[in-house]
Amino acid sequence: MADSTFPQLGFNTVNRYKHQATYDTETIHTIINTTPVLHVSFVPDPTTPAPIILPMIGQMGLYPGNIAAGEIAWSCYLHGYVSSRLIRLAFDAVARGEEGLPLCLAATKVDGFVLSLTPNSHNYNYRSAVLHGFGVIVEDVDEKVWAMKLITDSVIPNRYENTRVPPDNAEMQSTRILKMWVSGASGKVREGVPEDEKKDLRRKDVLDRVWTGVVPVHERLGEPRPGPYNRVGEVPEHVRVFVEEENKRREGYAVEAAGKPAPPKRIKKEEN
Amino acid sequence: MADSTFPQLGFNTVNRYKHQATYDTETIHTIINTTPVLHVSFVPDPTTPAPIILPMIGQMGLYPGNIAAGEIAWSCYLHGYVSSRLIRLAFDAVARGEEGLPLCLAATKVDGFVLSLTPNSHNYNYRSAVLHGFGVIVEDVDEKVWAMKLITDSVIPNRYENTRVPPDNAEMQSTRILKMWVSGASGKVREGVPEDEKKDLRRKDVLDRVWTGVVPVHERLGEPRPGPYNRVGEVPEHVRVFVEEENKRREGYAVEAAGKPAPPKRIKKEEN
Repeated sequence: MADSTFPQLGFNTVNRYKHQATYDTETIHTIINTTPVLHVSFVPDPTTPAPIILPMIGQMGLYPGNIAAGEIAWSCYLHGYVSSRLIRLAFDAVARGEEGLPLCLAATKVDGFVLSLTPNSHNYNYRSAVLHGFGVIVEDVDEKVWAMKLITDSVIPNRYENTRVPPDNAEMQSTRILKMWVSGASGKVREGVPEDEKKDLRRKDVLDRVWTGVVPVHERLGEPRPGPYNRVGEVPEHVRVFVEEENKRREGYAVEAAGKPAPPKRIKKEEN
Repeated sequence: MADSTFPQLGFNTVNRYKHQATYDTETIHTIINTTPVLHVSFVPDPTTPAPIILPMIGQMGLYPGNIAAGEIAWSCYLHGYVSSRLIRLAFDAVARGEEGLPLCLAATKVDGFVLSLTPNSHNYNYRSAVLHGFGVIVEDVDEKVWAMKLITDSVIPNRYENTRVPPDNAEMQSTRILKMWVSGASGKVREGVPEDEKKDLRRKDVLDRVWTGVVPVHERLGEPRPGPYNRVGEVPEHVRVFVEEENKRREGYAVEAAGKPAPPKRIKKEEN
């Protein structure tokens, strides 16, 4: 499945701290798929270079119906407030023979605060992914239902089948799915203990005074709270087990990242 | 201080779910100031409507030296990988007599998964803020040091004075601060229990089968772990107290949001 790497073209090449850069597809997909809100950017008026950003929820996916038709590349399926302006821009781009509306998508997860001797060497343990591509509105009904399930199950696995489905006509009409063809992608991962420069590591007065270490950070899921019209006695297994396992997994990642060796020395001024 | 509201111009007007929209300055500043990574978007090539997004760390601020000179509006001070391209674009815009490089900034915090009867009525409890404005590179040395302290202390309060400061010449040279003048801002806040449509609330078969409620979500700070060259015996108070108090505050917010009444009925199709 997602076992390849994204090609390194100009617009997805990470220019600095290259030891932290990743073009590994699985790593990038995982960052996107486990980030509850993605930020999607586009330019609403092509005559003015001013972008806007929308928070959306999304998942990487490869629709089986399209695989049969020869589609081999994963897209990002996005749901959220798709304005009539965004729909129009996407349709207009396709009508002009373009691949869709140019989009950029970002997902970032913070895994720890890295506290070092000087403000300049402070850092986060983090994972970030950026996709470049083109957005189109999904019109095929089966692909749309498939994407709705994909996105619902990204919040809590198997949630879709544990709700009132399928969507009725009004719901199908009011739901818009934006599909982002991916033309380029990059990611950055930082994990490990603090790192400082030699000039400070040599200073006994600084080492004796400044605490250095990592505060692990993770998104914690709390005790599920039934709502006012809930009639189901127990929290169902698909919710309960997910909350328990996710908390273990997320905390485990952050704590493990906090204890790893520092990444190789930064490569500075590697800009272009 | 930040007690006004942002003006509602075309580009910052929230078009849908208006009951969730906020233009309150304090709410918007708080969302930005408590989000560890902000996403900043700009258009690298004005002849192509394709934006890129950079993850950055930032804080709202009003530099006292500029207040004395009559500056009254808060800016967002940003730190991160400021590429030579970004610096050039910002300088070029100012040289052309513009306010700076057009930027859009987004911050989103997820406070809970809202699980309802149907996939379409699933939601998050969340807080998001979007700023529009113009980026310039901070050149004044005093303003730059002030911003470095502001940004360091945003990770852990009082961290700056508990490290080796002030920055030396090499650190001042290698650090770039991007200052974003804010021309417009908007926010969205959703909190509360699930809400479903009448057509589903009337269905006993659905109510008897589907669990509805909220899974509170918050970013949790773990036990601080000393790094390999740390020589300070105990975790210092500015770290320990912050971790304890933040966890209480963050968990408290998410749990309280999960139990609040549902927001007023959605206003649909209020697009423009």
